[in-house]
Amino acid sequence: MKIYRESLEKMIEITTEYTSQTTDMTIEKTVYDIIQDVIQNGDAALRAYGEKFDKVTVENLKVDQADIDKAYDSIPEDLKAALLKAKANITEFHAREKEQGFVDMDTPGILRGQKVTPLKRVGLYVPGGTAAYPSTIMMSAIPAKIAGVKEIVMVTPPQKDGIAPAVLAAAKIAGVDAVYQVGGAQGVAALAYGTESVPKVDKIVGPGNIFVATAKRQVFGQVSIDMIAGPSEIGILADDSANPVHLAADLLSQAEHDARARAILITNSEDLANKVSDEVERQLKLLPREAIARPAIEERSFIAIMDSIEDMFTLMNEVAPEHLEIQLPDPVQYMSMVENAGSVFLGQYAAEPLGDYIGGPNHVLPTSGTARFSSPLGVYDFVKRTSFMQFSKSRLEELAGHITTLARTEGLEAHARAIEVRFEK
Amino acid sequence: MKIYRESLEKMIEITTEYTSQTTDMTIEKTVYDIIQDVIQNGDAALRAYGEKFDKVTVENLKVDQADIDKAYDSIPEDLKAALLKAKANITEFHAREKEQGFVDMDTPGILRGQKVTPLKRVGLYVPGGTAAYPSTIMMSAIPAKIAGVKEIVMVTPPQKDGIAPAVLAAAKIAGVDAVYQVGGAQGVAALAYGTESVPKVDKIVGPGNIFVATAKRQVFGQVSIDMIAGPSEIGILADDSANPVHLAADLLSQAEHDARARAILITNSEDLANKVSDEVERQLKLLPREAIARPAIEERSFIAIMDSIEDMFTLMNEVAPEHLEIQLPDPVQYMSMVENAGSVFLGQYAAEPLGDYIGGPNHVLPTSGTARFSSPLGVYDFVKRTSFMQFSKSRLEELAGHITTLARTEGLEAHARAIEVRFEK
Repeated sequence: MKIYRESLEKMIEITTEYTSQTTDMTIEKTVYDIIQDVIQNGDAALRAYGEKFDKVTVENLKVDQADIDKAYDSIPEDLKAALLKAKANITEFHAREKEQGFVDMDTPGILRGQKVTPLKRVGLYVPGGTAAYPSTIMMSAIPAKIAGVKEIVMVTPPQKDGIAPAVLAAAKIAGVDAVYQVGGAQGVAALAYGTESVPKVDKIVGPGNIFVATAKRQVFGQVSIDMIAGPSEIGILADDSANPVHLAADLLSQAEHDARARAILITNSEDLANKVSDEVERQLKLLPREAIARPAIEERSFIAIMDSIEDMFTLMNEVAPEHLEIQLPDPVQYMSMVENAGSVFLGQYAAEPLGDYIGGPNHVLPTSGTARFSSPLGVYDFVKRTSFMQFSKSRLEELAGHITTLARTEGLEAHARAIEVRFEK
Repeated sequence: MKIYRESLEKMIEITTEYTSQTTDMTIEKTVYDIIQDVIQNGDAALRAYGEKFDKVTVENLKVDQADIDKAYDSIPEDLKAALLKAKANITEFHAREKEQGFVDMDTPGILRGQKVTPLKRVGLYVPGGTAAYPSTIMMSAIPAKIAGVKEIVMVTPPQKDGIAPAVLAAAKIAGVDAVYQVGGAQGVAALAYGTESVPKVDKIVGPGNIFVATAKRQVFGQVSIDMIAGPSEIGILADDSANPVHLAADLLSQAEHDARARAILITNSEDLANKVSDEVERQLKLLPREAIARPAIEERSFIAIMDSIEDMFTLMNEVAPEHLEIQLPDPVQYMSMVENAGSVFLGQYAAEPLGDYIGGPNHVLPTSGTARFSSPLGVYDFVKRTSFMQFSKSRLEELAGHITTLARTEGLEAHARAIEVRFEK
């Protein structure tokens, strides 16, 4: 791994080069045409794209419940046990995210507040092939269920041999109500606008390739979407008390996701930097996914040696990593210094894969520096709020003059009159 | 106003015709080019667009603090008093929206939780000309301030005679830190990517025309944005106990915003329907903005007569109005039947303009049916969450088998090894 020993300013510059993103108009147009086609032609368009892009002829877009039940029965017992334990832990953590709304009754004559209502129907996008992760289905559907969403539907690209049993089993365990075999931009369009088979939803969540991400951005406004997912990253803050074998393994666990993934170690120990670099190389050679992890490690990842713990945190907050491991003694004390991160793993035994699967917190996290402004997927993503107010005649009268002043300043005469008619003799 | 007396099914069909929306590729391309230009050429591009679109030569993009202070001193005393009272009420309500995060320490050896952190820098987009509403600046900046945002900047199109004093005064009162004279897609691009003068922000909020809305959608991912705002609407649920003069005034207060605004009355009283229709026509003729309100009323608005209170609510939930007035006896009892609405106004004296200016709840609300999945702008829009976990060695060991099973099912060997290295002798 590349090791930098530069000033904080220089390192911030190096780091931020990676994070700017813009749209690509060719892909925008392709996706636009697919969405229009799905709006016009519904199921027929979905089947045609299945033939064209996935090379699969799909008769029934909706997967039979019997096939889902069969898949559930067919998976190994240890996998079933792991999925059920994951469900329990994810549920336990996310139950604490549930929000209540509030009411303000402190002033006589005024009632004000906010009501929290679950979304009615939500759509999950689940990528196909090797990127079809049962764990992501759990992480997406369980918070929606806790929020009180009535119907959770899932779309995923059709596969020659049918959808993977582990995927269908996870959907059943997580409480998904229906699975449709349609992927790509057409899957997103189907969820946003509805077709004969696929019901229109209120929100679409889940990761996907550039076509899926672009489609989500285009349908935003017609429906709600979660954050646009980019390549994954892990940041580790460690000093010489950390174990280089563990750190190398954790860096590689992120690098094996994607050739564009990033693994970043920031430390105040030159000795640790060298040991981790050597250890990454040793472990990398042993990995089945070396071909994916190597470009991620060599081209996108680095180790930075800084002078102080403060500088280490300042730089890491610029990275705004999806996953942040703090492998420093007594790590909880540093939570106050964390400004931008999706999920923080504290100490030697909170290895990043614990969070990917079963620790409790969500693994759908802001990537590519978007932790600056985004949150982990959570129960709060599946509700909306409605404010309300009731004022007595005298409470409105107290404010009437202010309202008419503001309305007339803005040139909105009818606004002023709507108040005045209430006090006319 | 058009009065319908149709079945619930037929009315739902009529209602939903209005709500579908898609993108326009010509506008997408124009906006894309503007954004690229701003990324490449920074302030020079902003000045060039100011000349081209706004016909104004802007020397200093940033408005001088002295000019802001002068504007504040120059506005009428009654306007100042109204803005200050609005600030107090908006602050009082929004303080209740502040979120705390949580910590789960129920299991020995496991610490888990979520930390809430304010966004660092936020950008407000404020439209120019007659649509430059001081009230919207208050409604956007105050929740950001309560959330703890360190820096709030504002962009607004340059004006021949300078930015309106009421706008600058509202910015000062609301706590805006800097005002830049740049509008349109270029204003959004400047906030998303930064230029020599305009700092890059974490989130952009505020309404604008189709170019602004398209630019916001395109930069989504690079920064966070609020919902894409469409035309405004009001829905009123009333029976024959309601006052037709008040209802007509309230319907018109929404219609005067925009020729594409919608005003919808749903009632179980044919008598009320007729009286309101007559009254709307009478009041409409007296309005200075009749030319805007008339097409809204005649082409986009309607009165529906339904058989029961239940059907009235079912239909209104399909409309999912930005503003909902419930003018029925004892209105609070009906809050349980409200599924989709931005803000609810209960009873005769909660006139919609009360909420626009000074009632306390936010007036930046989900429009065009997006109350199905969106919320009023609030303090929660200006924070992000970070989850965290710490596990003891034995707590990790209990889950290690489940983690390696799930990792290997997903083909992620390095994930499994990151756990196993921690227990190797």
